[in-house]
Amino acid sequence: MTKYDAIVIGGGPGGYECAIRCSDNGLNTVLIEEAELGGTCLNRGCIPTKTLLHSADVYHEAKNGAAFGVGAENVTFDYAKIIQRKDAVAKQLSNGVAFLEKNHGVTVIKAHAVMAGPHTVALDNGEKLEAPHIILATGSNPAGLPVPGIDLPGVVDSTGLLNMTTCPEHIVIIGGGVIGIEFATFYYRLGVKVTVVEMLDRVLGPLDKDVTDFVEKELKKNGVELVLGARVQAIEPGLKVRYASVKDGTEGVAEGDVVLVAGGRIPNTRGIGLDKIGLRMDRKGFVEVDGLCRTNLPGVYAIGDINGKMQLAHVASAQGLLVADHIAGKPCRQLHLERIPSCVYCNPETAMVGLTEEQARAAGRDVGTGVFDLSGNGKALTMGENKGFVKFVFDKTTDEILGFHVIGPRATDLAAEVAAVMECEGTIGEIGSTVHPHPTVSEVVMEAAHVCHGGCVNAPKSRK
Amino acid sequence: MTKYDAIVIGGGPGGYECAIRCSDNGLNTVLIEEAELGGTCLNRGCIPTKTLLHSADVYHEAKNGAAFGVGAENVTFDYAKIIQRKDAVAKQLSNGVAFLEKNHGVTVIKAHAVMAGPHTVALDNGEKLEAPHIILATGSNPAGLPVPGIDLPGVVDSTGLLNMTTCPEHIVIIGGGVIGIEFATFYYRLGVKVTVVEMLDRVLGPLDKDVTDFVEKELKKNGVELVLGARVQAIEPGLKVRYASVKDGTEGVAEGDVVLVAGGRIPNTRGIGLDKIGLRMDRKGFVEVDGLCRTNLPGVYAIGDINGKMQLAHVASAQGLLVADHIAGKPCRQLHLERIPSCVYCNPETAMVGLTEEQARAAGRDVGTGVFDLSGNGKALTMGENKGFVKFVFDKTTDEILGFHVIGPRATDLAAEVAAVMECEGTIGEIGSTVHPHPTVSEVVMEAAHVCHGGCVNAPKSRK
Repeated sequence: MTKYDAIVIGGGPGGYECAIRCSDNGLNTVLIEEAELGGTCLNRGCIPTKTLLHSADVYHEAKNGAAFGVGAENVTFDYAKIIQRKDAVAKQLSNGVAFLEKNHGVTVIKAHAVMAGPHTVALDNGEKLEAPHIILATGSNPAGLPVPGIDLPGVVDSTGLLNMTTCPEHIVIIGGGVIGIEFATFYYRLGVKVTVVEMLDRVLGPLDKDVTDFVEKELKKNGVELVLGARVQAIEPGLKVRYASVKDGTEGVAEGDVVLVAGGRIPNTRGIGLDKIGLRMDRKGFVEVDGLCRTNLPGVYAIGDINGKMQLAHVASAQGLLVADHIAGKPCRQLHLERIPSCVYCNPETAMVGLTEEQARAAGRDVGTGVFDLSGNGKALTMGENKGFVKFVFDKTTDEILGFHVIGPRATDLAAEVAAVMECEGTIGEIGSTVHPHPTVSEVVMEAAHVCHGGCVNAPKSRK
Repeated sequence: MTKYDAIVIGGGPGGYECAIRCSDNGLNTVLIEEAELGGTCLNRGCIPTKTLLHSADVYHEAKNGAAFGVGAENVTFDYAKIIQRKDAVAKQLSNGVAFLEKNHGVTVIKAHAVMAGPHTVALDNGEKLEAPHIILATGSNPAGLPVPGIDLPGVVDSTGLLNMTTCPEHIVIIGGGVIGIEFATFYYRLGVKVTVVEMLDRVLGPLDKDVTDFVEKELKKNGVELVLGARVQAIEPGLKVRYASVKDGTEGVAEGDVVLVAGGRIPNTRGIGLDKIGLRMDRKGFVEVDGLCRTNLPGVYAIGDINGKMQLAHVASAQGLLVADHIAGKPCRQLHLERIPSCVYCNPETAMVGLTEEQARAAGRDVGTGVFDLSGNGKALTMGENKGFVKFVFDKTTDEILGFHVIGPRATDLAAEVAAVMECEGTIGEIGSTVHPHPTVSEVVMEAAHVCHGGCVNAPKSRK
């Protein structure tokens, strides 16, 4: 029985950062990971997909250079090389995590861990570890789909798709959430035929409706077939995806050579002894935690995807740091989930913080909105990417920022400004009075704030 | 004599926004511009150069697609088309300004204006206008260079260079400031040989030395010849630029087929009657103003480049809005110049807000710094652009942000976050506790804040 101050199970963005912070805080810390360091995010999620999307961007730019005075002949892509680069980037980052763990004095063990008691962990190599503080960070896996045909060859989840080295000709994507739409974007930009089948009546359900309308229009304009409000019933050899309308039962079929099942992710909380030690979980298998990620068992914490608060890498990381500081008795504060940004790498990219307009109205706030169109931004025009908009949702009584929604170039980075201002408890007025650099895309954030107050000089008067 | 409530002279970003806000504030407003609406910024400055730089980016990406799995043959650029696109973008934005003025009820007159009295303006079409409020926004022009040979064919200022429709083979750029370095970047990325001759011992003088060191290294790595600490003595037919070392007088010569003189900009305050009405100006011809842009003459304001506060388009705009609100008796506040970002579109791009480390130390602050390298950013790696760094300069006693310096992809947009937090009087701690979206470049801002406090988990321990 080896004793540590802290045991972290799972080396994704939640666990790896938590372990380093624990060690920096003076705790003798071990990090246990059964696969690659960096977890889903680095190896099978955020980073690999963004690497693919960047290759698609380069392909698209090279093919469309004429508008910018640039000529190129025989523009092609080599799918296997795109996948190889994706693997190389993931490998580089995963190696970076290994270096950081070592550099910060964290012991890393490659093993499968099972909870043997509230303070004891059993590894599949026979070792047993003990610590007063155990941080569970085992992440999530793609959810399956309970329909016939799910095991047919050519039917894959996101992990399987990322490993394919040949390019589909027509991919059918079941699920129009973040994962489905990012893959749809990657493939249509490579010229692959894409069909998305989604049960809800819109893609990217949790986003503001103005944004999802925009995304749907862009997808359709680029040849993506959207089948909305349709429940998949079966996948037949061929591969034929049979679906029926949620509303009236009308049936249809989408046929492709690859089917991606992208129906959400389920927490990795089974088969690791959690039930045996009496850890409280909800019906869906998420570990129940309080605002400091404490479970019902003293000294046992759950961070990241397994607590189901917000399945985002940056939330996992923030929770990891929070828990490490809490254990060390340092000042720490619960996360304000309403200030946490989220991103979707469709094209153009989109990001949001806080509430949608619908949610803010439903909450009974004195809702105002301010929308500014990207067509009024000089920098975006120089890039040939002046499509999209910024939308603030705010409280007209207090000037509080309730929600921020942006779709356009560099949108994902623009969200950081608003998140930071919310963290400072700043207002729409303060965004508006901040002198934003020119010429940058960031000016649209200021302009939208001016629209909120009826004083935007760069938009037509009627739009204020 | 036509009477108005407000007369704005000059239709650049200062004047055009001021006129619209004046009109929105209920003032009967006229805007007088002798050339194109949008002024230098839209027609001969910020926007045209960024349009050229984007074409160079597209060319560079198309040529270097192999790293991303993208092939292209015979990648070429058509210089005349690049210039045409630049003109088209400027024209589109200038037309946009004309539309906005009309839409907001501003009268626009195309004429040359001369002050005939403190409240009277004489136009070159014989008209006379009168108003209790006159806003001078006449901008600036490239400064000449008092050396022999300045009038030789092939020697141009930035305006002249922007109008050339053939690509130089070897351009000699006199002046390593923002304008010189942006043009150097454009040309070297097209494969043109570039020599920069700069009087100071570094390029981009006002930037933090860590950033200018980085920029110089990148320029040299890309074949740009930097001649620093050298004063130009003459330009001879050929075109031979003769210079001498500031330190020891050693002479040298740089030879090219085009010479760009990029030695700063002088205010357009001559020949428009300012001296005759008793307007107070300094030795260099800048109009003296207070924090509300008021001149010594009641009712006469000077905004933008002519008051010499900070020669930046976004400062001119902010001053324009401020003056319009001040005239209308609305609440308004002086600009905090130490919170205003500035950008340079070298490659990678760079931006700053506030003080350099040298300035902060000279000011006697309890200076701390926090540097985070772009190599630790996943998103930048996916883009193949993980070069650069972020550097905070802060007060260790108060945690106040004194300065922010960033060089890397999307750097210019990242500066907006820090400017906004400074506007909220937020601290390094608040930047650090803001959950930044993953995977985005913006995460580097948070990581650098963590470095300031010694708690960055994504950097090696020794670097904290």
